[in-house]
Amino acid sequence: MENSIQNLIKEKKYFEIRKYLNDLNTVEVSELLNQFESSELIMIFRLLSKDRAADVFSYLDTEHQEMIINTMTDVETKNIFDELYFDDIVDIIEEMPSNVVKKILKNTDTKDRHMINQLLKYPDNSAGSIMTTEYVDLKKDMKVSDAIREIRNTVEDKENIYTCYVISADRKLEGVVSLKEIITSDNDVIIEDIMNRNFVSVHTNDDQEEVAEIIKKYDLIVLPVVDIENRLLGIITIDDVMDVIDKEATEDFHKMAGISPVEESYLKTSAFTMARQRIMWLIVLMISATFTGRIIGKYENVLQSVVILASFIPMLMDTGGNAGAQSSTIVVRALALGEVDVKDTFRVLIKEFSISFIVAIVLAAINYLRLIALTKVPLNVALTVSVTLIFVVIISKIIGALLPIGAKVLKMDPAIMAGPLITTILDALTLTIYFKFATVFLKI
Amino acid sequence: MENSIQNLIKEKKYFEIRKYLNDLNTVEVSELLNQFESSELIMIFRLLSKDRAADVFSYLDTEHQEMIINTMTDVETKNIFDELYFDDIVDIIEEMPSNVVKKILKNTDTKDRHMINQLLKYPDNSAGSIMTTEYVDLKKDMKVSDAIREIRNTVEDKENIYTCYVISADRKLEGVVSLKEIITSDNDVIIEDIMNRNFVSVHTNDDQEEVAEIIKKYDLIVLPVVDIENRLLGIITIDDVMDVIDKEATEDFHKMAGISPVEESYLKTSAFTMARQRIMWLIVLMISATFTGRIIGKYENVLQSVVILASFIPMLMDTGGNAGAQSSTIVVRALALGEVDVKDTFRVLIKEFSISFIVAIVLAAINYLRLIALTKVPLNVALTVSVTLIFVVIISKIIGALLPIGAKVLKMDPAIMAGPLITTILDALTLTIYFKFATVFLKI
Repeated sequence: MENSIQNLIKEKKYFEIRKYLNDLNTVEVSELLNQFESSELIMIFRLLSKDRAADVFSYLDTEHQEMIINTMTDVETKNIFDELYFDDIVDIIEEMPSNVVKKILKNTDTKDRHMINQLLKYPDNSAGSIMTTEYVDLKKDMKVSDAIREIRNTVEDKENIYTCYVISADRKLEGVVSLKEIITSDNDVIIEDIMNRNFVSVHTNDDQEEVAEIIKKYDLIVLPVVDIENRLLGIITIDDVMDVIDKEATEDFHKMAGISPVEESYLKTSAFTMARQRIMWLIVLMISATFTGRIIGKYENVLQSVVILASFIPMLMDTGGNAGAQSSTIVVRALALGEVDVKDTFRVLIKEFSISFIVAIVLAAINYLRLIALTKVPLNVALTVSVTLIFVVIISKIIGALLPIGAKVLKMDPAIMAGPLITTILDALTLTIYFKFATVFLKI
Repeated sequence: MENSIQNLIKEKKYFEIRKYLNDLNTVEVSELLNQFESSELIMIFRLLSKDRAADVFSYLDTEHQEMIINTMTDVETKNIFDELYFDDIVDIIEEMPSNVVKKILKNTDTKDRHMINQLLKYPDNSAGSIMTTEYVDLKKDMKVSDAIREIRNTVEDKENIYTCYVISADRKLEGVVSLKEIITSDNDVIIEDIMNRNFVSVHTNDDQEEVAEIIKKYDLIVLPVVDIENRLLGIITIDDVMDVIDKEATEDFHKMAGISPVEESYLKTSAFTMARQRIMWLIVLMISATFTGRIIGKYENVLQSVVILASFIPMLMDTGGNAGAQSSTIVVRALALGEVDVKDTFRVLIKEFSISFIVAIVLAAINYLRLIALTKVPLNVALTVSVTLIFVVIISKIIGALLPIGAKVLKMDPAIMAGPLITTILDALTLTIYFKFATVFLKI
């Protein structure tokens, strides 16, 4: 695909390039453009029809958007940004260097510029920062025929016309009515009679994660954003929320692996930045693991008299870590999806205890049988290891499940608790239990 | 909230209960109902208006849905299921015991029953299994005014009217046209002239994960599902895809923690089932960890002559495991979101090598300085541990990044490779490297 376009460019067959682009949809055109470098990119981009150009532009990579703005005239820039929705403009501006931002703002109308500056002020990850202001607003005393006329007249500039918002004279949100409801009602029906008063809305400062929860819970396509006096300020559409859901899950994945949040995608972040994001936790964990090491140091005499005990350390540490990681992962995810809440702590405790009891007995039995059947390990050592295993699995699972809940109680992020931190705590516990049992069972 | 309703029920104030329910939206009513047991549940449910009852019903828990169907008459059952969309009916039927399914199917029209049976046949997690058939179809020679009339007349039964599908006489999908496009065009315009031919569609057997990818990539609200001859069979709406995205992320979380996929939510799954889902991996990992133990056994003489070496085992194993887990988590997530692909293997390799080099040097330096400044560890032991650390971190990060990609090449799930399996492999490598260096540096 890229090659054939390459040839068409070389042969200057502009007419054919344009025909080729017409057969692709917006996202496909932008994917194609993302593969080109500056001069060819600009050339192809200029072949797009005016209204399509803006659409394609909004899907391009940041670097390609920057290239285009840098080479475009002021008029061309204005043409594109006039067509874009405010939330997309804000997204673009947030990624651009200041000279590009200046060029963008210079080429927008005073009124639009004012609106964009307003949107840029909302804190990161807030509802305000992902909303847009291109919604349809109606008045409650309108007839259906008026409403349809209003929608038809203003549709060009609206990001979503399928959910309309009924507002009072002072812009307070009074009701929500779907286009479906409107076009299935008779022309003389008054909007007030078909609008839904039990709508859900969020505030500009609400977290985007909360916005995603609400959209999922109520199966919404659009969610209105209001200020504290219930004045309608904007709407959030579901496509922007999809990105939020992916981003939040990614953040949890990374935290659980002890990585500080990464904003950029993997291949675009420099090795140095990535090293910085990862090293903090590695240092903390390396140092805390030395405390685990000290436990071994403390029981040096035990190890020296029964050296074979050392060879079970990895198995016990790994099994404890794995058992704990299972529970903490399950609980972190259940908390994130709202399946489990702090008030369920006791139920979680009972459940994890039951699970770990079953699991622990089975693992210990397998381990004991394997040791006496397949190895020459003395019976009392096999017993020490197996009994340790029972306690380690039960304690690991309970701690693994409780730590994330504890984090939530302390208003911390449960995902951080499910990460390598748990492993370190469990390692120390495992070794302590192991050596305690060893001194008892082996009478050292 | 629950309490006040409880009181109203006791006092038999049905009128007030009804008024109270009217002030809640559908999702809130179903949340409230989910907290009640059988007799009260049925009582409140019967107070809902007919068209609202079906909506509320679709949001109830499976167990509450079952209670209601079991106590409802055939006519009541029919009333509810007539109002539901096919995809919701299919979801409900898939969760119900066979006697309830019989009752549902008995109370649907022959035509509907046929359609439901069709939908039930699609494989789990396929596009066909989550699609619904209530879409608006138009013909390309229709005028806009005809189209609007058609939409108005059929809107009652449609799940989504905002995207309309243009099909030929033999039901082949020819184009897509939005309601926005239709209502902003003049009445005489022919649908063919405003429909979009560059639409995206999926096949009934495509995986739901692929469906989610496409909806995200193209920012769609609805996606058409066709058969191999491009005949339109159904549509998938974005709200069903939101659930898919959460489910897929949860599955990855669980796999990475060595847990077999869990379908039910945490609190609803029995301890026995959960134990079964977790024990398989724990057994595999416990046994493979014993091989790690054997490495220690093999170098017993090294340990016996320099016992202090044992106390660094946890730190080295943990740091290797953590470093590897960081890389594998990053790569698994990047693969899942499509940010990285198999063709990027070399770039990933270079990037992980650079990151791990920086991280390894810093960690080793901190460790070395800490050992000689704060402990009485002999210099050559400190050196052994620190040099081991460098190699362990670099190798762990590279293996951690490559294993998930390798899994993808082999058409396996990358998430499984990022789980505890990596830890086990890295543990063995770490110990081998450690003892090799020890024998060299300490001349044992």
